[in-house]
Amino acid sequence: MIFSVTILGSNSAIPTLQRNPSAHLLNANERLFLIDCAEGTQLQLRRCKIHFQRIKHVLISHLHGDHFYGLIGFLTSLHLLGRKEELHLYANPGLRQIIDIQLAASRTSLIYPLIFHPLVSNEKELILETERLQVFAFPLLHSVPTYGFLFVEKHNSSVRIRHARSYAYCSDTAYSEDIIPYIKGVDLLYHEATFLHEMAESAHEKFHSTAFEAATIAARANVKKLLIGHFSARYDDLQPLLDEAKSVFPLTELAEDGKKFDICLTENPDPLKNKLP
Amino acid sequence: MIFSVTILGSNSAIPTLQRNPSAHLLNANERLFLIDCAEGTQLQLRRCKIHFQRIKHVLISHLHGDHFYGLIGFLTSLHLLGRKEELHLYANPGLRQIIDIQLAASRTSLIYPLIFHPLVSNEKELILETERLQVFAFPLLHSVPTYGFLFVEKHNSSVRIRHARSYAYCSDTAYSEDIIPYIKGVDLLYHEATFLHEMAESAHEKFHSTAFEAATIAARANVKKLLIGHFSARYDDLQPLLDEAKSVFPLTELAEDGKKFDICLTENPDPLKNKLP
Repeated sequence: MIFSVTILGSNSAIPTLQRNPSAHLLNANERLFLIDCAEGTQLQLRRCKIHFQRIKHVLISHLHGDHFYGLIGFLTSLHLLGRKEELHLYANPGLRQIIDIQLAASRTSLIYPLIFHPLVSNEKELILETERLQVFAFPLLHSVPTYGFLFVEKHNSSVRIRHARSYAYCSDTAYSEDIIPYIKGVDLLYHEATFLHEMAESAHEKFHSTAFEAATIAARANVKKLLIGHFSARYDDLQPLLDEAKSVFPLTELAEDGKKFDICLTENPDPLKNKLP
Repeated sequence: MIFSVTILGSNSAIPTLQRNPSAHLLNANERLFLIDCAEGTQLQLRRCKIHFQRIKHVLISHLHGDHFYGLIGFLTSLHLLGRKEELHLYANPGLRQIIDIQLAASRTSLIYPLIFHPLVSNEKELILETERLQVFAFPLLHSVPTYGFLFVEKHNSSVRIRHARSYAYCSDTAYSEDIIPYIKGVDLLYHEATFLHEMAESAHEKFHSTAFEAATIAARANVKKLLIGHFSARYDDLQPLLDEAKSVFPLTELAEDGKKFDICLTENPDPLKNKLP
């Protein structure tokens, strides 16, 4: 069964011809989650041949434009393309008015149900549970209210030996050890790394992280693999960011536009085996 | 002196990998006007190597998403790129709140003055006058309040023999002979042609025009050249739309993404000459 993340945008702040701003697509056992939706996400979905209508859930980490300015166009396109099925949207409560006012201006009534789930908790919160997956939101440390998201497969009796795969998305955040308990041991951690550590002061002022800091969080949280992204447009070459992160946490990769990362099923190690002489 | 139109988007409704939704860039003697600003316009400006900060005026024809969903991102990028100079925005009054609410959500105060000019008139109205150019808005016939725009060079004493060049932009509109007086004799008319005439009924229901109708307006208004655009995503091949328009008005071209149309200076014909035997 698939458990994969496709990177639709990896830049911070401003779209460039090389990198779009933030959006990820998680495919968890054929259930598609769109995580953030910057301007241009529609076209990135097309480029990656992801069928819009298969997306059932959209999660928006916070209301900075580089994480949600593509949402209204995406919602409108689903409408124009004849969607009937519910779409679930998880976001800061302020997003509802931003959507409503724009739909009202164009005299559009969506022909599908848009179910809004406001994110307001100050702690880790279960926001969605299906038969096979739990999704949690947890607070990050940024200049506006911002959530990370954690996706964890559920064990069930029919697949008891399976490893429960997990993915954590930490969009915009300053270095914060408070998030470590939320993401401990995940298979794949996405953590923003807007700057090189030589710009740590600028990063801190803007409540962003450096590649060094992202890798430090990954190491302290004992995750299996780290993806870094949300790169400042100042970096044409991302290799120095990757090198910096790898110096702390070797299993790091760049979350570049169009890349897909599969989280593989692995058998749970037999606890007895480890105790044999 | 330059008087040119660059097509940044030519599709209706939904962005595709081949065609972006509506946006035009008019360069009138090195003064840059952005006309409509669909999602993705920022990247289209980059592709066409047009420097964002040189744009002084943005005109939005109406509040359907395929004409303005890229505006908030464009305004934010100008801010992030350090703009100091005023930007003038001409649009339906409802756009102001749509912008303000999104800037408030991200706690952004633009560092440049954004001067909002609400469009409310039911008649042709002079909305901007410089030493060398007049810009008019005039009502179109669409399902929401919609304006066309007319750009006309001004004669002045130093260049008295020059032809006063003109460009008219008619974004979304049903076939309407009411607009003919506004655009009579322009050098270049952009008129939407969403459908082939075999879909006239559907066009009328949606307050859009067919290629045949756009060309009919061009012929009746005695314009010099016609550009058609705002094509339905149903058309991969635009040649039938061009052929249909040309059958009525031969001097028609397709307003395809990335194309640039120059309006040339021509000497005014000497009125006496025409009277010689």
